[in-house]
Order: sequence, then C-alpha cells, then structure tokens
Amino acid sequence: MAEEAAVRAQAEAVRRLKQDKADPDEIAKEVAKLLEMKAQLGGDEGKHKFVLKTPKGTRDYSPKQMAIRERVFNAIIACFKRHGAEVIDTPVFELKETLTGKYGEDSKLIYDLKDQGGELLSLRYDLTVPFARYLAMNKITNIKRYHIAKVYRRDNPAMTRGRYREFYQCDFDIAGQFDPMIPDAECLKIVHEILSDLQLGDFLVKVNDRRILDGMFAVCGVPDSKFRTICSSVDKLDKMPWEEVRSEMVGEKGLSPEAADRIGEYVQLHGGLDLIERLLQDPKLSQNKLAKEGLGDMKLLFEYLTLFGITGKISFDLSLARGLDYYTGVIFEAVLLQQENDHVEEPVSVGSVAGGGRYDGLVGMFDPKGRKVPCVGVSIGIERIFSILEQRVEASEEKIRTTETQVLVASAQKKLLEERLKLISELWDAGIKAEVLYKKNPKLLNQLQYCEDTGIPLVAIVGEQELKDGVVKLRVVATREEVNIRRENLVEEIRMRTSQP
Amino acid sequence: MAEEAAVRAQAEAVRRLKQDKADPDEIAKEVAKLLEMKAQLGGDEGKHKFVLKTPKGTRDYSPKQMAIRERVFNAIIACFKRHGAEVIDTPVFELKETLTGKYGEDSKLIYDLKDQGGELLSLRYDLTVPFARYLAMNKITNIKRYHIAKVYRRDNPAMTRGRYREFYQCDFDIAGQFDPMIPDAECLKIVHEILSDLQLGDFLVKVNDRRILDGMFAVCGVPDSKFRTICSSVDKLDKMPWEEVRSEMVGEKGLSPEAADRIGEYVQLHGGLDLIERLLQDPKLSQNKLAKEGLGDMKLLFEYLTLFGITGKISFDLSLARGLDYYTGVIFEAVLLQQENDHVEEPVSVGSVAGGGRYDGLVGMFDPKGRKVPCVGVSIGIERIFSILEQRVEASEEKIRTTETQVLVASAQKKLLEERLKLISELWDAGIKAEVLYKKNPKLLNQLQYCEDTGIPLVAIVGEQELKDGVVKLRVVATREEVNIRRENLVEEIRMRTSQP
Repeated sequence: MAEEAAVRAQAEAVRRLKQDKADPDEIAKEVAKLLEMKAQLGGDEGKHKFVLKTPKGTRDYSPKQMAIRERVFNAIIACFKRHGAEVIDTPVFELKETLTGKYGEDSKLIYDLKDQGGELLSLRYDLTVPFARYLAMNKITNIKRYHIAKVYRRDNPAMTRGRYREFYQCDFDIAGQFDPMIPDAECLKIVHEILSDLQLGDFLVKVNDRRILDGMFAVCGVPDSKFRTICSSVDKLDKMPWEEVRSEMVGEKGLSPEAADRIGEYVQLHGGLDLIERLLQDPKLSQNKLAKEGLGDMKLLFEYLTLFGITGKISFDLSLARGLDYYTGVIFEAVLLQQENDHVEEPVSVGSVAGGGRYDGLVGMFDPKGRKVPCVGVSIGIERIFSILEQRVEASEEKIRTTETQVLVASAQKKLLEERLKLISELWDAGIKAEVLYKKNPKLLNQLQYCEDTGIPLVAIVGEQELKDGVVKLRVVATREEVNIRRENLVEEIRMRTSQP
Repeated sequence: MAEEAAVRAQAEAVRRLKQDKADPDEIAKEVAKLLEMKAQLGGDEGKHKFVLKTPKGTRDYSPKQMAIRERVFNAIIACFKRHGAEVIDTPVFELKETLTGKYGEDSKLIYDLKDQGGELLSLRYDLTVPFARYLAMNKITNIKRYHIAKVYRRDNPAMTRGRYREFYQCDFDIAGQFDPMIPDAECLKIVHEILSDLQLGDFLVKVNDRRILDGMFAVCGVPDSKFRTICSSVDKLDKMPWEEVRSEMVGEKGLSPEAADRIGEYVQLHGGLDLIERLLQDPKLSQNKLAKEGLGDMKLLFEYLTLFGITGKISFDLSLARGLDYYTGVIFEAVLLQQENDHVEEPVSVGSVAGGGRYDGLVGMFDPKGRKVPCVGVSIGIERIFSILEQRVEASEEKIRTTETQVLVASAQKKLLEERLKLISELWDAGIKAEVLYKKNPKLLNQLQYCEDTGIPLVAIVGEQELKDGVVKLRVVATREEVNIRRENLVEEIRMRTSQP
C-alpha cells in the first residue's frame, strides 16, 4: 500500500533527524506527523493504537488499596476533628500567578495548563498556598482548618523513588494572632497522635526555627545574600554526609571554609531543653537578636510539649532546614526510624512522613494591603504511610474486605429471580447492605462461593417451601449453620448478627 | 503618569463598547487588555498586581458548605455501599489520547495540560472513560464500583447557569456479562433511593433506550448518516419546544419535513408498561429489529422496577436522548419537579440531578483485542443538589456546626494555661474532641462566647480550688448548669453527655 510506504519513509526521516541530533522542536513536529500518518493508516482493525496506561508518576487505586487508604484517612481525620478543625476545599487549579514566587527553586515542578483562551492556570503544588489565598480573598484572620486533597509536582519519579507526581496531602493549619507557641505545640501534638495511632513503628520529630538558622548563619559569617542558598545546602544533611554538604557550600556556593566549619559545629547539635539552655548561653548566638528570639520560643515550645508528655519523641535539631521559602519561625519534620530488629546500633531514619512550620508572611503576600495573618501548620505525607501499610497487609496475608455487604440474597431453586429481587428490595429499603447475583438461575454453590470470595457473612435463601412458610433460611457462611427466620424478623436478625462495625 | 492615562483611556474604551452592546468577544478582549495594563502598572508598592480569585467556573468550599457537602456525600456513599459497591480512584489527568474520540462534539470542552516535555495530558471530563480505561488496563471483566471525584469541563458558565467548570460526579457502575436488565434495574433503584433519602422534593426518572431511538429514526426515514445529529436535536427537547427542534432538524440538518413530523409523533409519547406494550404492537416499530430488542428489554426492566416498587416515579419517555456518544442501550435521567405549592397545573422539571445508561462498547475501545465488557452506570449530579440544600439551609436559618468539638477547656483565673494544656492533653489522648483558646489568660466570658459561636456544648473549667479538690467544673453551655466532676470521671461524663451522634 502506498500509505504504508509513506509511513515507512516518514519513520526513516524521523530516525535520521534523531541521529543527526536535530532541533528537538523539529523532531517533535516530524514525530507528530508520523503518529498522525500511523493513526490514519490504523492497526489491524484501525482502532487500538495508543498505550494503555496512567500518566507518568500517577496511579489508580484498586478497591483493596482504597480500603487501606480509607483506614489511614479515617485515623487522620479523626485526629484533626479531635482538635476542633473545620474543613475547606479549594479548586485543583489556581491562577498561575497565585503560585508564582512561592516555591523558590521548586517552581519549575509546577504543572501548567495549556492556554486554551482565558486565564493561565496551574495545578496546585501544595495546599498551603491555596489556603493563604483563601484567607486573603475572604478576609479571614482566624481559623483552624484541615484540607485533604491531591497536589501535583512534575518531579522525576525515577530520581526520587517512592514519590508520585500526583499525591495526597493532609494539612492542618491554625491561622490567627495568638500567644506564642501554643498553636505550634498543638501541631506537634497532632503529628505525635497520628503517627502513634497508625502504629508505623518508632518515629522522631525534628524541630528547629528559621530564626535560629538565620542567626546561626549570621554569627558563622555567612553573608546575608547567601542565607537562602546555604540554608538549602543544610537541608540536604538528611541525605548527604556533612563533608559533601561542606564542599557544596565552599566549592559551589563560595562560602569561606572558616564559615562552613563554624556551621558544621552547630548543625551536629541535637537534643532537648538542655541544648536550648546551652545555646541561650552560647557567647555568639546569644548576641544575635533573631537567634535569641528563636531560642526563647523554642524553650517555651518545649515547656508546652512537656505538658503534653511528648518530648520523648521530639528532637531540637540544628541541621533541620526545610526547603520551602515561606517558613518564618518554627519548622519541623517527622521521620520513621528503622525497626530495632534490623540489628543496627542507632535507629536510622527511613524517610519523612510529616512536616510543617510557621509561615507568618504568606497570607500578606496575597492581601492587597499586605495585612499579615500568622499561620502554623502541619502536612502529613500520606503516600509513604500508604506504602508501608500496604506492604504490611501483603506480608500479613490479612484478608481485607473491599465491601461492607451484610447479606447475599440467594435461592436454591430455579425461577426465583423475582422473589430474590422482591426480598433484596425490602432489605435495601430497611438499610441492610445486600447483594444478589445478576443471574436468572444462579447455582447455589456459585452464590456461596461469591460470599467466600468477598467476605459476605450471611446468606438469605429463598425457596418455594420457605415462601409458603413465610420464612427465609439464613445461613452463616463461616459456620454453615442454617436457621429459618420469619420474614418479618429478618431485618432485625441480620442487624443483630452483623452488629460489630 | 503616562501609563495611568493609558489605563484610563482603555477603561473608557471598554465602557463605550459595553454601552454599545458590542460583540462580547471583543469586549472580553479589551477588558483583558485593560487588566493587563493595570497589572503592569501595579499597586502602591508594586507587588499586589494580580486578581485575588479562583479560576473562572471554580469555587472554594467554606466550612459551612463542606458540612452540607459531607451530609450529601454520606447519604450517597451509604447507598452505594448498601448495594455492595467497592470504591476505586484514578488520577485527575489522563493521557490525552485516552479521552480522544469519546465525547463527540463535547471534546472541545476538555482541559489540556501544557506540553512541558513528556506525555500530553488532559484533565478527566467524566469518571466513565477513566473507569473503562481502568477495566481494560487491569483486564477486569466483572466489578461493581463507585467513584466520587471532581471532573473538568471548559464550559461557558455564563451560558449554562448554575454549572461549574470543576464539579463533583458520584458514579456507580456495574461491569460484567449478566442476564439482561438486572443491573440496569438496580441502577434505577439507586437513583430512586438517593433522591428519596435526600428529600429534594418530587422527582421523575425518564427512561429510554438508544436502540429504540435508533429504530425509531430508521422507521421515520432518517438516513443512517444522520442518526447521531438528529439524536442530539432530540436531546434538546427538555430545553426547547418541539417546533424549534423540528426546524433545527429540517433547516440546519436537512431532514425531510415528513421524517421530522413522524419523529414528532413518537417523541411526544411517555408512559409505563402500557405504552411499551402499545409500541410493541406498533406496525412500523415492531418490524424494526433494534426497536423490538429495545422494547423487549424495556418491558423486562419495568417488570423488575415493579418488583422494586418504584414505577410510580419512572417514565418511559421517547424524547430522552442523552448527549454522550458511548451509550448503547438503556439511558435514563432524573429530574426534580417543581414543588406543588408553586401553583402550576402540571409539575415542571427544574433540572437534571442524575443520569446514566448502558455503554457496552466503551471498554472494548481500550482493549488491545477489542474485548467487550458490558457496563451500565449512574452518575449523580451533585452540584445542583448542593445548591438546593444550601438554599434550604439559608432559608431555614438552621445553624450548621462546622466542627464536632465536645468540650472547651477553660479557666476562670489567670496563670492557668499550663493546667489547661495538661487537661486538654488528657482529653485528646482519651479520644475526646476538645479545644482550648490560644491565649495565656483568656477571659471566661470570651471562652463562653466561643462556645456559643461554634456550638460547643460543654465547658471544662479548671480553677485553683478545683485543682486542690481534684475536680473539674463542667458547664453545660445551653442551660448554664454547672457541676463538679472528679477528674478521673471527666472523660466518661463528657462522653455520656455528648453521646448522640
């Protein structure tokens, strides 16, 4: 066929352009032409030409995964509600300019929508910036809210394993002008409660303060202009040894070796109230206004955490920096520690599962008059928690039910479809969760097998004799026990027998 | 400033265009230019230049709206679970080609993502096509699932009022090869249950079948090539009188007046089993294979609906067409009827709140070997239901709580912050939903007022005397009753007093 020859010629042209490392735009254009030609030509039946997949970095959730996901969400939402939070929702995309200038270097990871006429839009990158936009737009100066939704980052999943481009965040934030450190302490209490509830194993919450970091940089001799970039080097200390971070500071970022070494001494420090007291006496830090403020608040924070009884899992850690630009005070990050039975001497962090901090300036960036609304919040990184729980379910061979069906309406003989439909309709109307096989004459064995497969605990069997007697035979799947129940008592009986949640 | 003068001139130009009722597109263009000029000019401090808003056609949900939304979702999810559905989730975007060729004329409403390198992506337009993609990709031939998520359509909200560009769909679908009309009948039962549960007033579910429509077109003398376009004219009958639809068929679409008149006779018909019987005897329709099949299944469907006791609200309506291309059998749409107290003679439809139908070919479009998986499903149009319930709440002045807090931990004297934090920590750990004001020394009056404002029913008051006596003063906000409770009994007492859900 002439068309096939044309496609081959076009394919060859594309190959040659690629070989010659031609202009990528030109290659793309020719590839598009090739695809179009192929599409017009069609496959065997001219219809199944595309790849059957979800977009890169995304995934579907199967019913089983959804069952696990619901457990996790329920635990998190219960905690947020226990702390009196309201809930809001915002659109999945924002005006592009709403997100501009909020994420520093990470801005390149924002998904933009195509310009199809009208506004320029971007998918949300987190829930914090939309929250700040919401507060400014509605002139809200005081709210405690949670928000659970998906966010989008054009990260490279190959480079950062276990990460997705579409993933859930579960955020709890407190906005308003309050006495220092009380809301901040509550955020840490929430992290502690959620990670304890989910039984993910041992964990540690690292805490620091942007003001302490900035004060430390100042007294170590970092020029003001280098604060942010040196801060982002420090942020890598959880993934790189100090020596590498130091050489990045000195080599790439042009910091003096002396300043780097002074930073090196500080960032190795971590501890509790005693360390805070010691640094408050530190001859250099104590002279710096920012550091002193930060340390004073850190002390207050630890006093409140002591009242909450959770300092055992909190570590004041001078190496914690957090990447985002908008933090202004306390910052924190929770990591899971490797299990003790892995025979390592000291517990090792296996990844961050929650993070947050204070961002007192963000709402002001949206307010036409620059009015500030102080905020502090926490974000639970749910994806890693899902994976851990999924793995655990796989390992335990625990059978997870994906429905809540209480009873299957079945029949032992033929020609009883109408009777099954009449009975199930009564059950549905009474609020019973019930199923029926969509067959006119299903075999009893198949109906019982369906219950075994899906975990339905009861079978309500209608037969000619039962119909005459005004009863239904109720069978308990697990024990195979069968008992005749008067039809008018059936709903109550099913409720009683399936009353545990 | 010259720029300011230019902005003023542009504003004047826009004003004049509006006055002259110029072409809306031209006005929009000039307004956009004006906004851009204003943005470049900037504000006083040259930093707050953007418009503080959500994208066109989208909205935030406030805590109060979320409380209403949760009620509706809970009712819908309860129904889906009652019918034994599992739940899945899919990404918010799909490969562009996954959506291509599924929506007919509506494809122009799909949101595309910007090409930032990598795959070409589009936001999902509904949940049905992603479901079909999911089935084909995972080779699932048998599932009953629900999916509640947002979908995206670049509709013109100015033209179609009450519609959003981002909105929720609540879908329930049954996939698999089953005996005819049993799953289809269950879908209609579900619509009936949900609309009854939500107490939205009287409603009617119109039912038809694509095969009956196609058969009708054939016997009326519509050429095969015009089936789809004439079908989409019929689809407008709920918004336009027959005369207008007829002139569209004849004028724009070139149908013969005779054929149009024959269609006109059929599409005025609606009724129940009697109408189905009559059409089965219709000399022309009964000769058409497709129509006969469709009518036979419609009869079976009505027999099952009779067993479910819901035919009172179901109407077989030959004017129902539904826009989407992928339907192959039964189609249906639920409309709310105007309330009787509006003094109209016949109930008038005020809009569609649910719709669905059978689509036996869609999964096969994704399967590499074209294997078909028959599907039938229903989608609840939640946005209109939200608006109705929101309006009702506004009208009733019902106070909607946006939190579930059971108790506020308060103090009557100063210097008791530590004691409040200690007590609230105990309550949180015991699972009590509790709040505290984030002030060192809040006034008791302010604390009580906070309870009034937010609907917290109880106040646990710590004071020096109470601490000495080992008790907490529990105050009932509604009655102002106060009673001392021993601290070790406090949790139980709060639980007891707030036990209603």
